[in-house]
Amino acid sequence: GGNDSMDTCNKISKFMQKSGHECRVMGVPKTIDNDLYGTDHCPGYASAAKYVATSTMEIYHDARVYDTPMVCVLEVMGRNAGWLTASTALAAYKGAGPDLIYLPEIEFDMDKFIVNCKKIFEKSGKLIVAVSEGIRDKNGKYISEYGSDLASEKDSFGHAQLGGTAQVLADILKKELKCKTRAIEFSLLQRCAAHLASATDVEEAFTAGQKAVQCAVDGTTDHMVAYERSEKDGKYVCNYVLVNLDKVANTEKAVPREWINKEGTGLTQDYINYALPLIEGESKPPMENGLPRFAKLKKVLAKK
Amino acid sequence: GGNDSMDTCNKISKFMQKSGHECRVMGVPKTIDNDLYGTDHCPGYASAAKYVATSTMEIYHDARVYDTPMVCVLEVMGRNAGWLTASTALAAYKGAGPDLIYLPEIEFDMDKFIVNCKKIFEKSGKLIVAVSEGIRDKNGKYISEYGSDLASEKDSFGHAQLGGTAQVLADILKKELKCKTRAIEFSLLQRCAAHLASATDVEEAFTAGQKAVQCAVDGTTDHMVAYERSEKDGKYVCNYVLVNLDKVANTEKAVPREWINKEGTGLTQDYINYALPLIEGESKPPMENGLPRFAKLKKVLAKK
Repeated sequence: GGNDSMDTCNKISKFMQKSGHECRVMGVPKTIDNDLYGTDHCPGYASAAKYVATSTMEIYHDARVYDTPMVCVLEVMGRNAGWLTASTALAAYKGAGPDLIYLPEIEFDMDKFIVNCKKIFEKSGKLIVAVSEGIRDKNGKYISEYGSDLASEKDSFGHAQLGGTAQVLADILKKELKCKTRAIEFSLLQRCAAHLASATDVEEAFTAGQKAVQCAVDGTTDHMVAYERSEKDGKYVCNYVLVNLDKVANTEKAVPREWINKEGTGLTQDYINYALPLIEGESKPPMENGLPRFAKLKKVLAKK
Repeated sequence: GGNDSMDTCNKISKFMQKSGHECRVMGVPKTIDNDLYGTDHCPGYASAAKYVATSTMEIYHDARVYDTPMVCVLEVMGRNAGWLTASTALAAYKGAGPDLIYLPEIEFDMDKFIVNCKKIFEKSGKLIVAVSEGIRDKNGKYISEYGSDLASEKDSFGHAQLGGTAQVLADILKKELKCKTRAIEFSLLQRCAAHLASATDVEEAFTAGQKAVQCAVDGTTDHMVAYERSEKDGKYVCNYVLVNLDKVANTEKAVPREWINKEGTGLTQDYINYALPLIEGESKPPMENGLPRFAKLKKVLAKK
């Protein structure tokens, strides 16, 4: 699991030790938020990133089918860390991504946002913006909360407002750019799209789980399995190490400031280099009648 | 294209004939709405259906990870025809789909809807509903328009309302079931998810385009290429026939009433049998760095 799960692991382990039960507790990381401390990246992140980047590229091409103006605001999960929203930069790296990317690591400035959007839209008649659900203004107020304020302005807009962050921004852009705008939330899809998982991620995740069980059997406790990145012959290699649960529990790892461009509207090549090896390869679920076949686990009682 | 494009084809052809220009006009169908008259199905539909059905299955499994109550309303494209929303029935056929499916072919009754939802939710604590964006009540009013009415009830809900059809229904269910609800719009994703196209669809679409060009070169005009379904050795076969544009233009083909269950809340086996062969096979785009590589057409001037 994520931060909360590691905290729970840690508490259970401490409780067991205090009450004199021998119990080995190992944390197995898993979060599309990618914000766990002590690991290069988290199982699940790369698959979600691959899905978000691919879908963003597809939306980009959809937007260019017609010669009409097109404004799209994409909302990606991430309350405090912008890792998953950052993955839309992979689409931009391929020439088919958002014009602007806003992460919760950077204070959101509505005036600058509108200026940036106008500049791009006036040039091409097209605009794609990607935002983390958790972006906040300088007072720490979520942009999604602007919705209820805007609701009181109902008349000037013609209809009531409601956040979603993307919906709030799409409504503001509609007024500012005087054109139709569209908010797209990746919603649950971004965390469950098993049909487009990264083969690298799936393999690493499997190994991480295996290591955790091995370690517990061998007598280790109070640790989380973590990924450590290295290179061999210029190629990405993932190593498996252990991190003390005390260090991991309840610490959030944000996207480094130096991986975000100066204006706070995109990612640098450092992020691209970080993410590309992780999304490599396609893990295809078994198909049946043109649809994925999901494994059904049979519950078997353990022998005593 | 769809209905409008076929109408345009027809008008251009008639105009050319009237003004004495020899010009052959062939319609090539293409619409995820699947509502063109004179053809068994439309290029594009099966790929969108495959994506919607697969994503619905994934959402179903996501919803069952936790033991908490879960209410999800999925919104699928389709203003007047429910073909694409019907594809969520393929997920249900696989045991991982919506409990209730509402198409625009059937008058939407809010009271019955709430009763149906309560019954299912009280039994399992889980509820997935799929709706077409275009569902209407007995007065022909779009359910998405209920949003602005509900906005005036702002206080009792605690926040302002806004449609999306799914959002309107999710807000109503939140109040009725007294639990968190979630609206998911497949939005643009459902019409551009090339990464999960049906191989059958892609092959048929290619052939349809080829036939249209061949026919035009051979002197045919004023027709649309259409699909005709037949069987050989118990297996689905697609034949290519021509339909007069006059017949196709501006006629919408709805989902037959007898393919929708009596209560108007799901599809019958007839629809499943219709759709399954169409979504067969996976058309995989070429990948590069773990992301799809889109073809770039080079513009070359024709020799005179």
